Amino acid sequence: MAKKKHQKPHNTGKIQIIYGIHAVRAALLNSKRAHEELYITENNKQISENLRSKIQKITILDQKEFKKLHGEIKSNQGIVLITNDFEKPTLQQFLKNEDKKDKSILLALDQITDPQNIGSIMRSCALFNCSGIIVAKDNAPDLTSSLYKAASGAAEIVNYFKVTNLKRSISELKKFGYWAYGFDSSNDSKSVNVNFSKKAIFVFGSEGKGMRDIVKKECDEIIQLKMQKNTDYMIDSLNVSNAASIALYEFFKS
Amino acid sequence: MAKKKHQKPHNTGKIQIIYGIHAVRAALLNSKRAHEELYITENNKQISENLRSKIQKITILDQKEFKKLHGEIKSNQGIVLITNDFEKPTLQQFLKNEDKKDKSILLALDQITDPQNIGSIMRSCALFNCSGIIVAKDNAPDLTSSLYKAASGAAEIVNYFKVTNLKRSISELKKFGYWAYGFDSSNDSKSVNVNFSKKAIFVFGSEGKGMRDIVKKECDEIIQLKMQKNTDYMIDSLNVSNAASIALYEFFKS
Repeated sequence: MAKKKHQKPHNTGKIQIIYGIHAVRAALLNSKRAHEELYITENNKQISENLRSKIQKITILDQKEFKKLHGEIKSNQGIVLITNDFEKPTLQQFLKNEDKKDKSILLALDQITDPQNIGSIMRSCALFNCSGIIVAKDNAPDLTSSLYKAASGAAEIVNYFKVTNLKRSISELKKFGYWAYGFDSSNDSKSVNVNFSKKAIFVFGSEGKGMRDIVKKECDEIIQLKMQKNTDYMIDSLNVSNAASIALYEFFKS
Repeated sequence: MAKKKHQKPHNTGKIQIIYGIHAVRAALLNSKRAHEELYITENNKQISENLRSKIQKITILDQKEFKKLHGEIKSNQGIVLITNDFEKPTLQQFLKNEDKKDKSILLALDQITDPQNIGSIMRSCALFNCSGIIVAKDNAPDLTSSLYKAASGAAEIVNYFKVTNLKRSISELKKFGYWAYGFDSSNDSKSVNVNFSKKAIFVFGSEGKGMRDIVKKECDEIIQLKMQKNTDYMIDSLNVSNAASIALYEFFKS
């Protein structure tokens, strides 16, 4: 893959490979990105003029050639974009901007490592007005191609902050007026009340282990979604992406 | 794999392979199943006595042997159960039973083919009191091992009805007093109102194409979840498993 710099603005020098129709479409629509090359299969060549104008170099390949070049990427949907990463705000810059909003919601994900889950959560964030996800640097996936794919375009607008110390970041956010709600489905936590604080952080842990104690203790309140647990079959928690989506929806409606 | 019949009751003669801690645990706790053999790695051998009593043949292997035998199964978590499928009610039998409930919710999934999504939806069903998912026979995955894994035990209690004609089944349910809500995120459908009918079917289509027109026309009402679509980046719909979970939660709370 040749690295060419035919476009200058906002080029962070970090090449990214993005695939899948929704993810590529959103990346092309992101004017902060400098793109390199778009590979599409013949049956995708009716790509709208609107998107064509966003990139100079488009290579149309037949199925066989495409497979040869990009076959290692599963479910690429016949569309692969080589682009550059773009400048993103720091958490501090982001918070300044959030301050202008009437209400603000952030997610903190503790030890959730599956890019599919995080991508899917990001997609829900985009639709429920949550612009930031905070994760611990050493215990969360990077913004990989598969995360971009699962986010279905949402990674262009939802910030993904990798912090050194999740507990400390939550503590700092509290100083900015955020109320930290830890979601825990164990029996002693109370059910969600819709009267959320105007500024809120929702903290979710991994499905198996939940939040780490150190993170849990930093929360102002421990809550859970109302549900009917099945003790006979020991079914007592939702998939984390579903749980986070429901919580975001509740906040969005509140 | 030797097929032995050391347990008689409810044996449908259809062997199933189930893996992953939650899925295997729930299957072992299902007294309607006749089990064959449980394979676990050494580090899983502290499996609770409660579960040990459910199966006669347990084979404990070291990591290397386990990998040799079951390495082709991704994310098996060191636990694989060979068991028999169990007797399930027909849709008619099921409806008779649902009639005793104060309120009843069913899902109809049109052209949703990803077992991960269906498994994850099934898990939400189990926690929000929805005991049945209806799909079209020729356009939905079977109850495969990976679907069982994604369902995290919920496949033991949530019925999965594969019908010949989805439209016709929805039509029949309406005769049983069910109100069919089709979920569609296009701009002309109205937002969810929490005053659901006591008996409801929620119909979801595939993420790309939505419901087929023929199915959509069968719905009594077309609705959508309240959300903030992003037209700049063309982000306008949730992952179907997240959308279904939110809808089920809303019904559960109603």
